[in-house]
Amino acid sequence: MKSDPPAAPPCAGPRRGRPRSEAAEQAIFAAVEELMTAGTSLAELTIEGIATAAGVGKATIYRRWPNKEALLIDMVSRLEEPLPESTGSVRDDLVAMVEYMRQRGLAKRSRWVLKAALGQMHSWPELHAAYRARVIAPRREAARRLVRRGVAGGELRADVDEELLGDLLLGPILARSVLWDDSDLDDPQLADRMVDALLGGLAGPALRAGSV
Amino acid sequence: MKSDPPAAPPCAGPRRGRPRSEAAEQAIFAAVEELMTAGTSLAELTIEGIATAAGVGKATIYRRWPNKEALLIDMVSRLEEPLPESTGSVRDDLVAMVEYMRQRGLAKRSRWVLKAALGQMHSWPELHAAYRARVIAPRREAARRLVRRGVAGGELRADVDEELLGDLLLGPILARSVLWDDSDLDDPQLADRMVDALLGGLAGPALRAGSV
Repeated sequence: MKSDPPAAPPCAGPRRGRPRSEAAEQAIFAAVEELMTAGTSLAELTIEGIATAAGVGKATIYRRWPNKEALLIDMVSRLEEPLPESTGSVRDDLVAMVEYMRQRGLAKRSRWVLKAALGQMHSWPELHAAYRARVIAPRREAARRLVRRGVAGGELRADVDEELLGDLLLGPILARSVLWDDSDLDDPQLADRMVDALLGGLAGPALRAGSV
Repeated sequence: MKSDPPAAPPCAGPRRGRPRSEAAEQAIFAAVEELMTAGTSLAELTIEGIATAAGVGKATIYRRWPNKEALLIDMVSRLEEPLPESTGSVRDDLVAMVEYMRQRGLAKRSRWVLKAALGQMHSWPELHAAYRARVIAPRREAARRLVRRGVAGGELRADVDEELLGDLLLGPILARSVLWDDSDLDDPQLADRMVDALLGGLAGPALRAGSV
């Protein structure tokens, strides 16, 4: 969805270097975040308002994106860092995936995008679709592959369906990082604790004999 | 927050019976849902627009609520049904709690409130606070009590902190019922499957020997 600036705009002045262009983009993204944090709704957001807040001309924005939807989609799709690489052990890969989501939760805690993604986006189908395609789908697909590998290698139970295994393993960190706004993500051991408790089972001694 | 209509309004006509009053309330709630579903944001919502959509006069709304915020808070606080009663067994109570949330997820799937609660509400602190106080807090408190009872009775592990146990047990159903809009909540056995898998542990045979 990102529209690259035309290669040789007819009336361009001296070619802008990469650093300057990146600075403008960062200023524009920061302006959108600032406006949204201050309570501007997606509907109220305008290119003019963004340009003013960023201290750039409207043309600077329009050179990069045809409209605010394209700008927002580009911004949303850049939020995510690459998912962690596999380490070999399914248990360790699960910990790395939960840890990745913990880090994302910590980073996004104060960001408008998290809330907007789940809230206002439903009236912005194109933005919602982009968020699903670029952020949610790759994560869920990575989780699915990992679960499949775990089941195949005997590290995960084969008698629980894979979709459910994925939600059982990642639902808790999602609840903490996305749903609650007051929950504890600061414990650096959280991912280890979560994964080991889930693998080992939550039953206490009174249930343990008959539950496995 | 709900403001009862004055007991004897000075210029009232013949006293409206309870059924008529309830019909008006239902029409008003339905109108808000309809407007929100059609994409009206909380900021755009007006008493006038609600009155028109509900086919009632503005005075009918103002007799019940001083402003739209009070109306929305009242509406949100009525969304929840009472949490299930205890059955005695912690495992069965956990299943009942997950099942309750599955049912709420099914019912809310198409409702604006779910999305609004998580999205636009951040710019409506009073509404957000009411949602937290009336919907989320009672649920989390009930979950906390149940977990504490399970740990005390040996049905749940004592070596995982209670807050974490609660998130491990309920995070997965929250992810399915609140976060994903395409996930499967239709399986009537879902709550049993989730709770039993979580209690028994997700480790497969290759990890089971050393994991507990």
